Amino acid sequence: MQVDGSHFRSIWLADDEPEVLVIDQTLLPFAFEIRTLSTVSETALAIRNMVVRGAPLIGATAACGLYLAAETDAREANLHAAYQELRSSRPTAVNLRWALDRMLPLLLVEPEAARVSLARKLAQRICDEDVATNGAIGDHGLKLISNAAKSSPDRAVNVLTHCNAGWLATVDWGTALAPIFKAHDAGIPVHIWVDETRPRNQGASLTAWELGAHGVPHTVIADNAGGHLMQQGEIDLCIVGSDRTTRTGDVCNKIGTYLKALAAHDNGIPFYAALPSSTIDWTIRDGLRDIPIEERPAEEVSHISGRDNEAGTLVRVRVIPDGSSAANPAFDVTPRRFVDGIITERGVAKASEENLTALFPQEAAGQPL
Amino acid sequence: MQVDGSHFRSIWLADDEPEVLVIDQTLLPFAFEIRTLSTVSETALAIRNMVVRGAPLIGATAACGLYLAAETDAREANLHAAYQELRSSRPTAVNLRWALDRMLPLLLVEPEAARVSLARKLAQRICDEDVATNGAIGDHGLKLISNAAKSSPDRAVNVLTHCNAGWLATVDWGTALAPIFKAHDAGIPVHIWVDETRPRNQGASLTAWELGAHGVPHTVIADNAGGHLMQQGEIDLCIVGSDRTTRTGDVCNKIGTYLKALAAHDNGIPFYAALPSSTIDWTIRDGLRDIPIEERPAEEVSHISGRDNEAGTLVRVRVIPDGSSAANPAFDVTPRRFVDGIITERGVAKASEENLTALFPQEAAGQPL
Repeated sequence: MQVDGSHFRSIWLADDEPEVLVIDQTLLPFAFEIRTLSTVSETALAIRNMVVRGAPLIGATAACGLYLAAETDAREANLHAAYQELRSSRPTAVNLRWALDRMLPLLLVEPEAARVSLARKLAQRICDEDVATNGAIGDHGLKLISNAAKSSPDRAVNVLTHCNAGWLATVDWGTALAPIFKAHDAGIPVHIWVDETRPRNQGASLTAWELGAHGVPHTVIADNAGGHLMQQGEIDLCIVGSDRTTRTGDVCNKIGTYLKALAAHDNGIPFYAALPSSTIDWTIRDGLRDIPIEERPAEEVSHISGRDNEAGTLVRVRVIPDGSSAANPAFDVTPRRFVDGIITERGVAKASEENLTALFPQEAAGQPL
Repeated sequence: MQVDGSHFRSIWLADDEPEVLVIDQTLLPFAFEIRTLSTVSETALAIRNMVVRGAPLIGATAACGLYLAAETDAREANLHAAYQELRSSRPTAVNLRWALDRMLPLLLVEPEAARVSLARKLAQRICDEDVATNGAIGDHGLKLISNAAKSSPDRAVNVLTHCNAGWLATVDWGTALAPIFKAHDAGIPVHIWVDETRPRNQGASLTAWELGAHGVPHTVIADNAGGHLMQQGEIDLCIVGSDRTTRTGDVCNKIGTYLKALAAHDNGIPFYAALPSSTIDWTIRDGLRDIPIEERPAEEVSHISGRDNEAGTLVRVRVIPDGSSAANPAFDVTPRRFVDGIITERGVAKASEENLTALFPQEAAGQPL
């Protein structure tokens, strides 16, 4: 999407050099800097240190890292070593393993001399496919926003989103934000309520930055505020992303999503999850029972990072008393009865096993329950 | 309540000197310091700068300020001037006006020579009455916790609370926290989930500090986490305070309260508001329509204060991008259908006009609808 009027992806291959370029997301929203990755180790470190984050982007970055490995030394032993190093950089990210497992076997069946150009082609394809998938999600979601605009032609469509499911988490477009960017680009007036998304503040730091850089009107709110805004008629629809969705349509997403879904339900406001079908776990039906919730470090709750305006530097401050402990469940599950639709690359499905499997019959059939 | 094993109120009169002592709440949770107020101006400044905050405590502080005025000069002109200075220190706090209006006429009908001792007596009475009211709220709420303890004798009773409705907001005991302190003191094992309560973080900074200082087990969580914890069976009941409650039982409280009430309702968990009857606005029935919601400065969302651990100093950091705006509604209204009970100084009432007016017939009759 746009940053100060120029188009960027979150990752791209250099034209002339064996180099991968990424936006350093650890510096956002206060600085926009491009990092050059030239080696597998630099790539693994960028994933580990969250210079890049977001499941789809991590997968694309790993693919690019395997290409860099082939540039250095295309022999099987080196490619295997690179695979291991990249895969262990964020062990829980499913897309990371998926991208590497897709590339490595295809490389190894080729003669060494052919591996570099094939690796580059495959890495590029993984990036391009992600963009196409998210673009399709955006097109399907656009219709929902477009319909909302027709219902209230005298004002902007007000969309609430939670966390960051934008282009920074993918290669481009994003998932939940793709319909919003499409609507804005199509000239539909939109205004986005951005949940700050404690404890890691991805909404305030990444989503607000993305929207601002692309020129989309938005307002940051405390996570506590969304219910009140819905009661007051200030929100027309909600769109969130998902980290894992059951075949029945239960949506696991960033902690706090469930509370907004409850409020949307209580106020008759449509609540959508936007996600590529790769996010659907066809092996499970009950999200509350079968999706383990990651407990992250308490320090993410007890401390907050921001910019000290006087010093101009990033500072991490403690915000709870010495001696108090904190808990930090990172995700929650929104039961399908509170989800009005799931926006995928093939269209919008009701949050039900019948509708999701009808849209993805092969994928649903291919996975043992 | 207890601080490091010693009993404190949030405000008290010095025994021998014409002085008022308060805990400096701007320094919590990182430092515990007592401030001495000797003049009306110092008292008004302490209210304005939020050295003291919380509606009941502000009222008690204003009463003590009027006593200090009488000590300096008990003539009518000076008492009137003190009244004006104190009343304008936080113009929206209802209790401030209530305390001053209660004291001043009683002083003025006395001869000047009798006013100092009467002012001291009245200020002391206002403080003591607040403690008695909150103690009674605590006793009634204690039964609810005690019953929950009988239902699950093998583990602590897990209570979720939002914002700070503790003794720091009153003279002692607090409202929502009074039943919790009573239960803890009675030897009932309790564990409190403390919503950090963005944007001003009163939960993380004040409630967690209060509980820690008194020795009550607790865990701070992001405001986003409560719904998930309820789904997982980690919460037995919710108790919150209220800034204003309709005669029908709609509860206006700190922003985010409504979201927790929705989650409690969805998971079959009892949700209570604890409040003195002075908080009930007998003149209104529809909280969503008739309670105006204060919009506070955007800076409370865009910036956070905390302790820089390296420097050891308090720092204010920016947490949203330059160019992004923020909105900050400070309260929301929880409709009575999501409130299981209202804990008052006279007992627990259902959140309905019938039940509230039955408990407070005189108060309900005395106010025009």
